[in-house]
Amino acid sequence: MLSTVAIQGFEGSFHQIAARHYFGPAALTAPCATFGEVVRQVSSGTAGHGLMAIENSIAGSILPNYNLLRQAGLRVTGEVYLQIRQHLMALPGQPLDDIREVHSHPMALLQCADFLSQHGPWRLVETEDTALSAQRIREGLRTGTAAVAGKLAAELFDLEILAKDIHSEKKNYTRFLVVDRPENAAAVVAPNKASLYFHTTHAQGSLAQVLIRIADQGINLSKLQSFPIPAKTWHYYFHADLEFDDPAQLEAALQAMKPVTEGLEVLGIYHKGTTHK
Amino acid sequence: MLSTVAIQGFEGSFHQIAARHYFGPAALTAPCATFGEVVRQVSSGTAGHGLMAIENSIAGSILPNYNLLRQAGLRVTGEVYLQIRQHLMALPGQPLDDIREVHSHPMALLQCADFLSQHGPWRLVETEDTALSAQRIREGLRTGTAAVAGKLAAELFDLEILAKDIHSEKKNYTRFLVVDRPENAAAVVAPNKASLYFHTTHAQGSLAQVLIRIADQGINLSKLQSFPIPAKTWHYYFHADLEFDDPAQLEAALQAMKPVTEGLEVLGIYHKGTTHK
Repeated sequence: MLSTVAIQGFEGSFHQIAARHYFGPAALTAPCATFGEVVRQVSSGTAGHGLMAIENSIAGSILPNYNLLRQAGLRVTGEVYLQIRQHLMALPGQPLDDIREVHSHPMALLQCADFLSQHGPWRLVETEDTALSAQRIREGLRTGTAAVAGKLAAELFDLEILAKDIHSEKKNYTRFLVVDRPENAAAVVAPNKASLYFHTTHAQGSLAQVLIRIADQGINLSKLQSFPIPAKTWHYYFHADLEFDDPAQLEAALQAMKPVTEGLEVLGIYHKGTTHK
Repeated sequence: MLSTVAIQGFEGSFHQIAARHYFGPAALTAPCATFGEVVRQVSSGTAGHGLMAIENSIAGSILPNYNLLRQAGLRVTGEVYLQIRQHLMALPGQPLDDIREVHSHPMALLQCADFLSQHGPWRLVETEDTALSAQRIREGLRTGTAAVAGKLAAELFDLEILAKDIHSEKKNYTRFLVVDRPENAAAVVAPNKASLYFHTTHAQGSLAQVLIRIADQGINLSKLQSFPIPAKTWHYYFHADLEFDDPAQLEAALQAMKPVTEGLEVLGIYHKGTTHK
């Protein structure tokens, strides 16, 4: 039996597209209204896995999601990268000229601002989700209305794509993390990536000392993100993503990092993800 | 003649409190609806200076503001730290028992959630600004309504503080940057802090090499923040804050950093700010 994957967002969302790429097209997804709900469903065992966006190549990190993961004690077991492609879709058989208003999430409308301003004039209606906008057009049989959403939404709700790839910035990728309860995070065979947390002492050069120890093992630091430590004003902890060839490199780096870090914690050891377009 | 300071937010806001601490109590402030408007007013010369929040000790960095500064080519000429203290205020003479609803920005309501849930029951009304909520009570002579806002709002709009320091997390500080046009960023005498941008090559250990060169000069790296480079997917640039005793240390570090960085740029050289409570 396939276990459910808790995702943020609705049926047909980019989270669902990412889940299908990672877990296969038959993946059962449990839509959640918030990222907090994704974490709760995984922690409680309601869902077998979780999948959540962690950063976007244009907008940057989704900082609160790092906190959610850390607080919940979940483990990262994988990742997947997805190109964000937005399409204009409506009930089949309608010409573009019949469209009078366009519904979508404000971020999606913004991503397609060039296209939307060059056509129309259309009334733009902000909604809570791209795919939900598509679903409402189908359920309400709303003519004259189009949605901006991903391809899966058009497929699920049987809408026709009137204009393809209408997003302005073509290099728009989102990285999603796959998360599991610690007891279900079985050892990955031949991992080549890890996510860590640590904080350094306030001593001068302490972060440099940590990074040297990582580089000394031939490990590539693919990401370093700082966060405030709430209880210690203007002290930071760091999230680091490390890419390596052999897990022995990671083990050696972790040993070498211990004397120069505090609160060093491995959030997950997994396979570097592939990019889907 | 005093020049105007463009601030984000309304009369009586925490930005105005911070501006008065930095520029003195007679500072003339120009309220702006957005951070983008602050930058535009300074860039165009409409305002003499700008003051904008850049990070909070609990919520973390306001990432879009780093981008705004970088794109506008403004310089950081100073900084100021302010403790965020929230108070419950209403038209004078009303007992707490007469209050039926409380208006404020959703973040302020959240910061005071413990207090608000222990009293009342009150209807909580989300507004676009803390100080604006106070101003509307005064202008509408609204009885039975209180606002959550900073002390200055109570003073400016002649409201009575019914409950002081009602925020749950007492260690809540916001850091504000003072920004100026490059031609007005006169050399600061005896600076001890600098803000830099740079990106590294993707070579292993390149960031460690940068940080070693900073530490080698006895400079304290007080902040390191990574950002995605939109045109180069999953490449990052870094914002770094450096604290030193002698500007010669900074000069030496900048020279040493050049061979191991790309696009190294000094955003500002200034005095480390003081914290106001």
